[in-house]
Amino acid sequence: MAQINETTQGVLDQISEGFAQKGAYNLRQNGVSICHGDSEHIKIRKKEDKPGIDILIDGDTKGERVFIPVVVSVSGMTDLVYNDFYIADGADVTIVAGCGIHNSGCNESRHDGIHTFHVGKNANVHYEEKHYGEGNGTGSRILNPVTNIEVGENSVFTLDTVQIKGVDSTVRNTNVSMEAGSKLYVIERIMTDGKQHAESNMEVCMNGSGSSAQIVSRSVGKGESSQVFHPKAVGNAKCHAHIQCDSIIMDHARVGSIPEIQANHVDAAIVHEAAIGRINDEQLLKLRTLGMTEAEAENVIIENFLS
Amino acid sequence: MAQINETTQGVLDQISEGFAQKGAYNLRQNGVSICHGDSEHIKIRKKEDKPGIDILIDGDTKGERVFIPVVVSVSGMTDLVYNDFYIADGADVTIVAGCGIHNSGCNESRHDGIHTFHVGKNANVHYEEKHYGEGNGTGSRILNPVTNIEVGENSVFTLDTVQIKGVDSTVRNTNVSMEAGSKLYVIERIMTDGKQHAESNMEVCMNGSGSSAQIVSRSVGKGESSQVFHPKAVGNAKCHAHIQCDSIIMDHARVGSIPEIQANHVDAAIVHEAAIGRINDEQLLKLRTLGMTEAEAENVIIENFLS
Repeated sequence: MAQINETTQGVLDQISEGFAQKGAYNLRQNGVSICHGDSEHIKIRKKEDKPGIDILIDGDTKGERVFIPVVVSVSGMTDLVYNDFYIADGADVTIVAGCGIHNSGCNESRHDGIHTFHVGKNANVHYEEKHYGEGNGTGSRILNPVTNIEVGENSVFTLDTVQIKGVDSTVRNTNVSMEAGSKLYVIERIMTDGKQHAESNMEVCMNGSGSSAQIVSRSVGKGESSQVFHPKAVGNAKCHAHIQCDSIIMDHARVGSIPEIQANHVDAAIVHEAAIGRINDEQLLKLRTLGMTEAEAENVIIENFLS
Repeated sequence: MAQINETTQGVLDQISEGFAQKGAYNLRQNGVSICHGDSEHIKIRKKEDKPGIDILIDGDTKGERVFIPVVVSVSGMTDLVYNDFYIADGADVTIVAGCGIHNSGCNESRHDGIHTFHVGKNANVHYEEKHYGEGNGTGSRILNPVTNIEVGENSVFTLDTVQIKGVDSTVRNTNVSMEAGSKLYVIERIMTDGKQHAESNMEVCMNGSGSSAQIVSRSVGKGESSQVFHPKAVGNAKCHAHIQCDSIIMDHARVGSIPEIQANHVDAAIVHEAAIGRINDEQLLKLRTLGMTEAEAENVIIENFLS
């Protein structure tokens, strides 16, 4: 068993609930894999040509979880990693991929995770990604993930991402291509505060007949933070998609939403909804009459909105 | 009374219902004003420095209509015109500004109308614009309007545009800035067929406290035509806005919708909805059971959708 220091364990508790050194897992700390394990159906291989790992998930995987947390705990580091997931026909797997930065120095700490998913047919993949920053330093905590997903025929892919707090700057780029009969569920949650900036670009191409996508994005902007959302759904076949972006704006935050829907086929049905507004005054009043302070009531509403 | 030839009259019947050579009006034909009139409260002045007119609408104007149709009936002409509207505090006016191209030649005919509205306080402006193309020639019929609107305090501006048919290519650019308490209503309707292309970009900046905007865009894409919509609502003050884009896609048409909402103020509430899909099958079936052919039923549904 590898020894995990207190700082790393503290970050792990935030980003990777349930993580333990058993089954299939890989813990990356400051650019190095400090421990890893395989299971009967899931094998993890270090890449030879560049930083990162290949995660090989066979077709007999049923309901198993694989943990691949990343912790950056030194100031001034830029960690770039390429993780490739090969998910065989019929596999059913949950991948937990949190990333946390503890920066107590004055230099920028940054992690860029480039994740590519090659999903076979009839598979069911649940991918969870928590992003988190902490530390008393003045150095920035930056996370710029790139997520590429190929969803095979009749497979289901669920992308569940959350940026809890403490991330100064993030630019998310997500690209999804979908084969016939496949389904995509995306839930994205972002909260920013102070002078933080978050940007999320997503392009979903429904290329196969009968594919469908449901994208839900929820965000809260506090302080002087700024957010930009740019989800794009392209229907190249008989397909349907629903995109919903809701944002709560507080203080002096700025929130922009630029959804794009493109129908290139007569049987493509695509719907989008977006709303940006302040916190619900009625809910706030109700909670305050129950004895909460304004700040407490706001927190309850925000937690509920993002959960 | 100026003599109006049969071709021009035919186009006028399509774009400028109710037009007559009385009251305030200006008829532009092939780049030249062929007749114009003033009324007690509305004066039309030819620009000295560039093509176009100034339309001066005084504050005592109550419920009056001014017609400024444009007809291009020769092949190979590019007509560029600048029209400026000065609308005084308290005026109540309807401006009818159709544009039609009759092209029976093999060269491109094009009209670019650059319209700028300076609207004072407490005014009510209704602006109607119909675009239309006809003629058996192979030359393209192109309309690229630019519409700039400054809406003064507590004024109401209604922008009602429709592209009936026959326009091969259009790029619409609309910019609106809004003062305190002002209201904007936009209804945009576009139908494309064949190899036609339509693009509409609109930016509405709600700068004044209490301003509000309601934007409705409806379109039908037939044949191999393509459409792109890019409405943008920016809230820089306490304001609210609702944008709704609905498109029916038929045949091999391609329709894209890229609405953008940007809230820069905690009391800005902005909502957007967009939907692209094929014609409603249930409605189609219902009308066919009433004895209509498929084409007839489609036409009824489309006309209803765009009206």
